[in-house]
Amino acid sequence: MTLKSIKYESGKLEILNQLLLPAHSQYIEVKGVEDGWRAIHKMQVRGAPAIAIVGCLSLAVEIQSEVFTNKKTFGRQEVEGKKNYLVSARPTAVNMKLAADELISLVSRQPNYKKKNVGGSKILFLKSIEAMLEKDIADNRAIGDAGAKAVLSHCSVDGLVRVLTHCNTGSLATAGYGTALGVVRSLHSANRLEHVYCTETRPYNQGARLTAYELVHEKIPATLICDSMVSALMRARNITAVVVGADRVAANGDTANKIGTYQIAVVAKYHGVPFYVAAPFTSIDFAIPSGEHIVIEERPEKEMTHVGDMRIATPGISCWNPAFDITPSRLITAIITERGVFTPEELKQQKNCLFTSTLFTMHRHKKMDLATDGTEIMFRNYLCGHS
Amino acid sequence: MTLKSIKYESGKLEILNQLLLPAHSQYIEVKGVEDGWRAIHKMQVRGAPAIAIVGCLSLAVEIQSEVFTNKKTFGRQEVEGKKNYLVSARPTAVNMKLAADELISLVSRQPNYKKKNVGGSKILFLKSIEAMLEKDIADNRAIGDAGAKAVLSHCSVDGLVRVLTHCNTGSLATAGYGTALGVVRSLHSANRLEHVYCTETRPYNQGARLTAYELVHEKIPATLICDSMVSALMRARNITAVVVGADRVAANGDTANKIGTYQIAVVAKYHGVPFYVAAPFTSIDFAIPSGEHIVIEERPEKEMTHVGDMRIATPGISCWNPAFDITPSRLITAIITERGVFTPEELKQQKNCLFTSTLFTMHRHKKMDLATDGTEIMFRNYLCGHS
Repeated sequence: MTLKSIKYESGKLEILNQLLLPAHSQYIEVKGVEDGWRAIHKMQVRGAPAIAIVGCLSLAVEIQSEVFTNKKTFGRQEVEGKKNYLVSARPTAVNMKLAADELISLVSRQPNYKKKNVGGSKILFLKSIEAMLEKDIADNRAIGDAGAKAVLSHCSVDGLVRVLTHCNTGSLATAGYGTALGVVRSLHSANRLEHVYCTETRPYNQGARLTAYELVHEKIPATLICDSMVSALMRARNITAVVVGADRVAANGDTANKIGTYQIAVVAKYHGVPFYVAAPFTSIDFAIPSGEHIVIEERPEKEMTHVGDMRIATPGISCWNPAFDITPSRLITAIITERGVFTPEELKQQKNCLFTSTLFTMHRHKKMDLATDGTEIMFRNYLCGHS
Repeated sequence: MTLKSIKYESGKLEILNQLLLPAHSQYIEVKGVEDGWRAIHKMQVRGAPAIAIVGCLSLAVEIQSEVFTNKKTFGRQEVEGKKNYLVSARPTAVNMKLAADELISLVSRQPNYKKKNVGGSKILFLKSIEAMLEKDIADNRAIGDAGAKAVLSHCSVDGLVRVLTHCNTGSLATAGYGTALGVVRSLHSANRLEHVYCTETRPYNQGARLTAYELVHEKIPATLICDSMVSALMRARNITAVVVGADRVAANGDTANKIGTYQIAVVAKYHGVPFYVAAPFTSIDFAIPSGEHIVIEERPEKEMTHVGDMRIATPGISCWNPAFDITPSRLITAIITERGVFTPEELKQQKNCLFTSTLFTMHRHKKMDLATDGTEIMFRNYLCGHS
């Protein structure tokens, strides 16, 4: 069964504490926004989609808690404050902001929302947040199935595939199932996966700690390699395809993802191995023309010089620790989304298509302003990739 | 001053315990072959040339110890036994075997060596071993200077260079000075080095622990990166050249070196960065036509799953841990040796040249059989790359 990293039942939220993995599998309860902020800030939960979901669910829990029982108002200002607070826990995780903006947009679109009764608003919010969780998992499954089909196109009709993945893009990074690791899961479910190789993903070791944890948990045949071994692996084993996740995809297909992704793409090209990016359609930012416009965060040296509190590098050596790198679209075979698999060239067409669709949606919003239930608007927006 | 990792004075050998680096700089005494075997096996000393030197010096120390004082015989059989024992400490380190073979060849070439007095044989051995140490350092300096010249050919007349290196090939891996790191030292001495970048070199972190240690010790401007960051670095910084070491070079220039070297060569080619291999001429094995004939040692999983005694990977995950990889000669700009800098194409000519020289040497040996001092023969053989 797929590892459950986020357990949510109406009014109760528990998350798997990723800081203790792989040594201990401990769930911690998140009782409200305060706990949510702490979990995100401490990196007990990580991965952009997972952060967004946990942030929103912490709000859902809080709405159902005693704190809110006697409230006389509940609306935009309240949620805005909570949103800004949650975003401040990990400012670079853009999905949290996008998801919270959707909620606010939903509230503000309510007819006479200031006068709306508290109970009605709360139910609307809860329904929306819970649907968001379900949709995220459904999208991941769609990504998994589309990706499996794409990878299988590179082998014989009933052949088995060997896939390489980088970092963690599984249940631990998303609401469940995963993006690139969702593709691996789908291949495994379909009995078409011979083996998956995962990189350690230095310096934070998400591959060795988290991806390996998920693969061992689900008994998927897997082998861990160091980041330096990808080329040797491609030479020694017949790797069918590489599948990685994405933090952000520019309009031309250039992809920002965990440091090391670009290098894997270079060596995949050299060895003629197809290179896929798997991500929710919302990761595609059509406002960014190319990867050159994405600023790379540089993270503290300590991530490289230490493992936990143990120093592993020579004292006094300086380090360069970029969190991400940009893979140019020319190295990418295709981008796998819940809406289908697009080559970088096809992505450009999607942009034009989206532009028309957004205009259409904006027009519809105008008409929908009178509707009492904003959920539909919210999800149309969500499906449009926030463009 | 260049870091001194091997301290030898007649009868006394101390080596810097590399297992404790970078946290502690502790020298341990090697009192004989038994200690030498342990130091090599435990990897308190590593790097093919350093292993050979420490192995031979441990024999030198033993020859001068009490154990040997009352011996009535000393010859081929004795050294053969010690050699096999020392080689068994780290079977893939070919230099140890080659150096020991030289010593045996020396003994067997002695006229009536079975009857030779013990004292005479011992002195001959000691002289040979000590000269080997001196020659190793002199060769490294020659490699450093030749390599610096090669790297500087890629920049303007008085420009500064930025070099990337992998693993540890410095004072800690050789008798002193280093091969690839010797090139860095020579560039720094000539005030032509702007910056050197060194990779962590997972899984054993020789870059983070040892190369960084040497660079900090000698105040050479340096930055540590993860193995996954080489491509991002080449994109972000204008790297003049890559210089790495070699465990073995085949006759066609294919090079076996620390895992990850091949990947760096692939990405260097992609980014148009010259890629140099720096190694003693003896690392070139003209008996091996290409890299395909080199068997890759696979090392224990624990090296990847643990740092010291601390587990960093998920329990139950299997690992692939090849110690080396093979860089095909088409990715190599040139091979820097103490005898000059050779493109893979030029190496083939060297093979023919060597073949003639070996025939000549064999002819000379025949004549020299009557000489009492075999040292000259030994060093002609050594210079001929053990061919």
